[in-house]
Amino acid sequence: MNMYLMQEYLTEPAAQPLFGDAQWFAALLAFESALAESQAECGLIPETAARDIVRACEAVVPLDHAIFVTQARQSGALGVALVAPLKRWLSHNAPEALSWLHWGTTTQDAVDTAHAMLTRDALGALLAEIDALCEPLQAMARQHAATPMLARSLMQPAQVTSFGFKCAQTLASLRRSQAQLRELSSSALCVQLGGAVGNRASLGDAGVAVESAMARRLHLHAAGYAWHTQRDGWMRLGMEVAVCSGTLAKLAKDWALMSQCEVGEISEASRGSTSSAMPHKRNPVHCMQAIAQTQPVPHIASLLLSCMPQAHERALGEWQAEVAHWASLWQHTLAACRSLGLAAKGLQVHVGRMQANVDVLQQLVFSEGFVHVLSPCIGEVQAAALVAGMSEQALAQSTPLGALLLQWMEAAPSIEAAQKPPLRDALQQAADLNVAVRSSARACHELLKECAHCND
Amino acid sequence: MNMYLMQEYLTEPAAQPLFGDAQWFAALLAFESALAESQAECGLIPETAARDIVRACEAVVPLDHAIFVTQARQSGALGVALVAPLKRWLSHNAPEALSWLHWGTTTQDAVDTAHAMLTRDALGALLAEIDALCEPLQAMARQHAATPMLARSLMQPAQVTSFGFKCAQTLASLRRSQAQLRELSSSALCVQLGGAVGNRASLGDAGVAVESAMARRLHLHAAGYAWHTQRDGWMRLGMEVAVCSGTLAKLAKDWALMSQCEVGEISEASRGSTSSAMPHKRNPVHCMQAIAQTQPVPHIASLLLSCMPQAHERALGEWQAEVAHWASLWQHTLAACRSLGLAAKGLQVHVGRMQANVDVLQQLVFSEGFVHVLSPCIGEVQAAALVAGMSEQALAQSTPLGALLLQWMEAAPSIEAAQKPPLRDALQQAADLNVAVRSSARACHELLKECAHCND
Amino acid sequence: MNMYLMQEYLTEPAAQPLFGDAQWFAALLAFESALAESQAECGLIPETAARDIVRACEAVVPLDHAIFVTQARQSGALGVALVAPLKRWLSHNAPEALSWLHWGTTTQDAVDTAHAMLTRDALGALLAEIDALCEPLQAMARQHAATPMLARSLMQPAQVTSFGFKCAQTLASLRRSQAQLRELSSSALCVQLGGAVGNRASLGDAGVAVESAMARRLHLHAAGYAWHTQRDGWMRLGMEVAVCSGTLAKLAKDWALMSQCEVGEISEASRGSTSSAMPHKRNPVHCMQAIAQTQPVPHIASLLLSCMPQAHERALGEWQAEVAHWASLWQHTLAACRSLGLAAKGLQVHVGRMQANVDVLQQLVFSEGFVHVLSPCIGEVQAAALVAGMSEQALAQSTPLGALLLQWMEAAPSIEAAQKPPLRDALQQAADLNVAVRSSARACHELLKECAHCND
Amino acid sequence: MNMYLMQEYLTEPAAQPLFGDAQWFAALLAFESALAESQAECGLIPETAARDIVRACEAVVPLDHAIFVTQARQSGALGVALVAPLKRWLSHNAPEALSWLHWGTTTQDAVDTAHAMLTRDALGALLAEIDALCEPLQAMARQHAATPMLARSLMQPAQVTSFGFKCAQTLASLRRSQAQLRELSSSALCVQLGGAVGNRASLGDAGVAVESAMARRLHLHAAGYAWHTQRDGWMRLGMEVAVCSGTLAKLAKDWALMSQCEVGEISEASRGSTSSAMPHKRNPVHCMQAIAQTQPVPHIASLLLSCMPQAHERALGEWQAEVAHWASLWQHTLAACRSLGLAAKGLQVHVGRMQANVDVLQQLVFSEGFVHVLSPCIGEVQAAALVAGMSEQALAQSTPLGALLLQWMEAAPSIEAAQKPPLRDALQQAADLNVAVRSSARACHELLKECAHCND
Repeated sequence: MNMYLMQEYLTEPAAQPLFGDAQWFAALLAFESALAESQAECGLIPETAARDIVRACEAVVPLDHAIFVTQARQSGALGVALVAPLKRWLSHNAPEALSWLHWGTTTQDAVDTAHAMLTRDALGALLAEIDALCEPLQAMARQHAATPMLARSLMQPAQVTSFGFKCAQTLASLRRSQAQLRELSSSALCVQLGGAVGNRASLGDAGVAVESAMARRLHLHAAGYAWHTQRDGWMRLGMEVAVCSGTLAKLAKDWALMSQCEVGEISEASRGSTSSAMPHKRNPVHCMQAIAQTQPVPHIASLLLSCMPQAHERALGEWQAEVAHWASLWQHTLAACRSLGLAAKGLQVHVGRMQANVDVLQQLVFSEGFVHVLSPCIGEVQAAALVAGMSEQALAQSTPLGALLLQWMEAAPSIEAAQKPPLRDALQQAADLNVAVRSSARACHELLKECAHCND
Repeated sequence: MNMYLMQEYLTEPAAQPLFGDAQWFAALLAFESALAESQAECGLIPETAARDIVRACEAVVPLDHAIFVTQARQSGALGVALVAPLKRWLSHNAPEALSWLHWGTTTQDAVDTAHAMLTRDALGALLAEIDALCEPLQAMARQHAATPMLARSLMQPAQVTSFGFKCAQTLASLRRSQAQLRELSSSALCVQLGGAVGNRASLGDAGVAVESAMARRLHLHAAGYAWHTQRDGWMRLGMEVAVCSGTLAKLAKDWALMSQCEVGEISEASRGSTSSAMPHKRNPVHCMQAIAQTQPVPHIASLLLSCMPQAHERALGEWQAEVAHWASLWQHTLAACRSLGLAAKGLQVHVGRMQANVDVLQQLVFSEGFVHVLSPCIGEVQAAALVAGMSEQALAQSTPLGALLLQWMEAAPSIEAAQKPPLRDALQQAADLNVAVRSSARACHELLKECAHCND
Repeated sequence: MNMYLMQEYLTEPAAQPLFGDAQWFAALLAFESALAESQAECGLIPETAARDIVRACEAVVPLDHAIFVTQARQSGALGVALVAPLKRWLSHNAPEALSWLHWGTTTQDAVDTAHAMLTRDALGALLAEIDALCEPLQAMARQHAATPMLARSLMQPAQVTSFGFKCAQTLASLRRSQAQLRELSSSALCVQLGGAVGNRASLGDAGVAVESAMARRLHLHAAGYAWHTQRDGWMRLGMEVAVCSGTLAKLAKDWALMSQCEVGEISEASRGSTSSAMPHKRNPVHCMQAIAQTQPVPHIASLLLSCMPQAHERALGEWQAEVAHWASLWQHTLAACRSLGLAAKGLQVHVGRMQANVDVLQQLVFSEGFVHVLSPCIGEVQAAALVAGMSEQALAQSTPLGALLLQWMEAAPSIEAAQKPPLRDALQQAADLNVAVRSSARACHELLKECAHCND
Repeated sequence: MNMYLMQEYLTEPAAQPLFGDAQWFAALLAFESALAESQAECGLIPETAARDIVRACEAVVPLDHAIFVTQARQSGALGVALVAPLKRWLSHNAPEALSWLHWGTTTQDAVDTAHAMLTRDALGALLAEIDALCEPLQAMARQHAATPMLARSLMQPAQVTSFGFKCAQTLASLRRSQAQLRELSSSALCVQLGGAVGNRASLGDAGVAVESAMARRLHLHAAGYAWHTQRDGWMRLGMEVAVCSGTLAKLAKDWALMSQCEVGEISEASRGSTSSAMPHKRNPVHCMQAIAQTQPVPHIASLLLSCMPQAHERALGEWQAEVAHWASLWQHTLAACRSLGLAAKGLQVHVGRMQANVDVLQQLVFSEGFVHVLSPCIGEVQAAALVAGMSEQALAQSTPLGALLLQWMEAAPSIEAAQKPPLRDALQQAADLNVAVRSSARACHELLKECAHCND
């Protein structure tokens, strides 16, 4: 797929071309070959005709792009442009095969089937890119399962979590997407074979047999029916790509926030200057790419869904629009995944800064636990008010909240002397970072275990 | 859910209120009760505290809407508004339970869990509405499996199909959506239990046990982890609703087109005048409603997907926006399904007009077959040109295309006499409507069989 | 802009390349030249440096695409890739100019300014395409101002209108879009000049002067301020393109409906077969293209709007995503307009069929008027009921509704003899097609007059 | 407009109800009154009929919500439900006026006109909310025009700007939106008067006169034509609301980022605890609300744009969907504006922290200037490399970059002694924060001046 200059720099190049002209032409011709061979196998057309059609499909390569587009424009139908050079070759070389070419099918059969083939490749690429991102995520989840860092809710300090647990959550989400993508592929990556109006009229009783033979040849699945205008199976796969993109966008946002100079908890591998004006600039370029690439995805999903009402037996525009935009869903998600994979691979994790960002908060992150410890003694409302008030004091005086509460407790006349030692212990335990981080470590390991099963 | 006047008339009222204030309040309180009971069951909090909290949850009903909203606005957190009246009741009646109220959880736990409960009801309602639409669709598919009608591609006459097959295709798609909705519910309709930052810190080792106990009590599933900011499972269910809505939109579009006066193949049950000015007006009101209701769904899907990048351990706005718009996805799809169910139930199928719309085309719908019959004799290119030319003539002269071709064939010097009798038979067979409709009938029955399995 | 195969056949090629790599490179280099010249003009940099930079910009053409993209990827900044070859040339040929190259600016200044230049060309192309569509629309509006045709509401027969009026309404809407596009261009097609962070720090007091000089050189406007992260002016222009696309989509939908075989009121110029299987097929290919091209536009508009929250002084991803998708808004709208222009130019208007579609309704289209005539005599409720009942009879008996009503009236004992003659006249006038079409003709001419002013 | 519980807490209540049932009913009845009065004024209907219709409109208040909805559902047409009670009243009290009720109009005339009236109120409210936000923005722009703070690009430290300039940029953008909203209102807030099919057939020559008279009575504008299915003027206003929402979203994002604990440059006015679990929590609740409210707006814009292709003379679903969702565009934008207005009014600006965030960067923010100063002496490439290298050193050693460069320069053998004093001065000036902030202050004042003109 040719890329626009303004999109091209927002991604590393793919390992293989996807949805390119050459791939399209090859898949369209593969459809015609497989159709003829399968029809011959089922006794619908002569073996010789099938052989001639296969030869024609080989002979016309490479298709002339300009002629193809001109004919497709003229007719509005890619099938017309596809069979034209085949017809020309056959009329010269095997005219008796002519009437079996593209027989019993329609433009949409060829295009949807080819599209399923190209999408299968894109799916393979996406699964691989997710693997490439999951590998460093998993490594970091293991390594940092108990590395304390600030947990933030509503973009404000909340409590303590671990960097590993954050990684594991994204990892688990990506693994679920992989499982779902695989699961859905069998009902989405199917041969399309409906004939002119979806009822396989020309194929008689042999429709299902031809479909199966084609699926075998083209390494696709057989739905058992035509899906010309019932796009639910196809759309389901697309929507899972969009969901996966949402997970990637969340990761990119978190890392962008953690990369802020004022937060400083991670940084992307150094790449020299990233500014045309400011030599000191170090931008999180991979995060930028991932954000730029995931930004369009919900809107493309919406576009594809809005194409679903396809009138009668073939749409006037909606199907064509769906085909025109399907690839971009994959391209953007692939690109985002690739950028984040590169970011993850080179990620510098600043453990000291993570710790410092917790420490500077003077144990405010333990406020929930402090309240819980104090409530039985002084009442829940009073405990919450006390902790809220002392929280401000702790920040103002740069003194740990726990210390202030201990000090208050020791002096509090309302608390009996006998209560004080256990209360002291409880407050100290509530302020224990190790305890706090333990639950994140446990949650992290549970997710890692679950992900291990995903891979089975 | 209170409905806007301009939306309210676009749907029949639901059998039960969904996402209403009362449902929300009940579900939120059920969360607090189930939490306390489950924590007590797991030995985390005293049995008496749990009992008191349950009593409090009963005692505060009905919650005061205005106070609730004011407190939620003030704090930005629904949890604050939820626990306030419970705290008030407990401080008067069971102050020692106060510190166990809402313990170890956060606003998002309560809201997401309650939302899952409300969504379970909406899912039940949607499955039932789909059933109510599928029933007449299935009946029509059976009855009209071999009722010939024009198949149209690009909104132009193509070939012949059957009305039953058209119904069966939508039916099969809806059944697939039902199966998928059921399948996804186990990973989407889950208790949310993460505590302040998703690591279940307060619950220690008992997190999974409490989650399971709550799931049992609330008739939800247990994911085994918190999904505060990893929304993929939840989103997957939403996207399936959007896909289902696409299928409904396709049906509404088809029926709107078939209802056009100039097409006249179906009409909705009569309902008296549908115009404030024109007494003769008979509008397809249910189709109008279904189109109006499915129109927003792709855009709501896009909105929900765009909320997925939820920063850190709780989003600043994106989560709240997701919760605010999730219900409308269901409401619109439910309403569209209900309107189409009513349309289907009362649908008048004008079989004569279907036949007439085919007949008026003078057998042009068999052009593909005619070409295929003639090609071996006169060459494929010539056959196509001949049929194309005679097609115009057939329409101009109101003479069946088959007759014109027969006439031409009998007179054609280029065709040997011996070839003529079999050619005559082949042309006649190619123009046999019964043959043509047979493939649609077969395809229809195959789908009906598949759907029967779906129901297992 | 390289186009994806699956989009390429959905539009005729543009008269000129828009947003192509070559255009981008030329505009980016033009920015650097104009910047240097303007800074020299304002006395900020030496004249010789400016001349050297201009020479460098000429010397590096053609830029190497692959190297450019690689460097842009590496840095995430197109500016880095842009200045690299210029720096190389200057270090060899005029090293003392080096420190004045790209001085006081940033990547976004170059990219946004170049983008404004490319968009100016796209705007010119769009205005011309709209003209090309408006010309046949206007001719048809004039010619068919009084050509009666069925008006349809909710896709059902309503009353009578004229084909010319339908054309004029779209014409007027397109003219309003043209006027608005022109109006908005002065605040949208502006030089971007903000320096690293939008405050034009390096330019001192000369910021406005440099901006004006650049605007003069590049044939753009000068906003007087940087619009790095305040995209409202730019977005306003984009949203007008989306609105214009909505008007085009409405036209395409109407024409697709009128082109249906069963309606038959218009057809696109014949283009031979448009199907790979069915030689009789005549598809409205231009309408299909226009529908396929306008379908994505609302979603692209949504994507662009969702990019507006650009953090601080340059966005991490949102700006880059906006730039990456802006062109497609224009491409789709241009393509839709072009297809509809071609459709309009060759449109076959079947006046007889329009009349026949009215006639077949047996004057039901006059029901509102009949009621109004009868109400004073027999009461409004009775009149409406009478007309509604007789409407069904008229269709069933293929008798004009007016004749049935006259017949009823003559026999009605409740109507006094003296009332009958004027009532007879009134009923006959209410059934006068000429009267009915006159209002459409008048409305048509009013719009044509308004459009004439638009062109001033 | 009744609000969903999950949306209600995301906004402060509006000063006045907008799009409520009562407003709708009042506006619909006002349409019928004004129509009758204007038709009487133009001599089309008897004065007495007009007076009776006006009386009827007064007499039926309050309309019964349930009956209204039931009748609208039944017919799919709000007009049918609207005239029913009026007809009932008139048949009892003034039967001779019956046939002039709603005469010459249609459901869409009433609904669109009423909608324009409600939208006029919403526009007034939005302009006022923008004013309420602009006031504190302007005050802060003035007060902090020269308050230095870090400028950030790609979410990383770039250079220095001022807090006032940031405020002024948003202010200017909002003022432009206000101007545009006012400008567009005259072509958007128009009487709808087209009759059954948009040609004003019943009104004869008096169409324009009636339209003008109605506009005068209802305080709307007169377009001069019906806009039943040409929605461009209406949509333009909607798209400007969406653009305005984008500006608000950018402000909310900036403030959310600046409110982060680690950045600490601003905070919202204290409001007590904002968490159900953590007493120390201080969330930027107004920013959260604004983000949650602006999030859906691009998607609603997309939905509205996708409704533009309205078939023929009245849409089957698309118009109804547009009407159903138009209000939410306004509600969300109004709510976001209100929340940000409250945030702005109470905003705590931490000038010291702003300064500290600059200082901690050890003059790296001046790197562009340093390179520019050094380039003439040592070459641009070397200067950039030197500054980049020393930037890291400056951070590592907590030493100002300027001091390191001075030190290097003094010791550099490659720089002649005579060059050193001027170089020293230039480096010192390049590191002068006052100089740096001056350009932002100037830019700030220029925008403030421009905004002053906006208000004229």
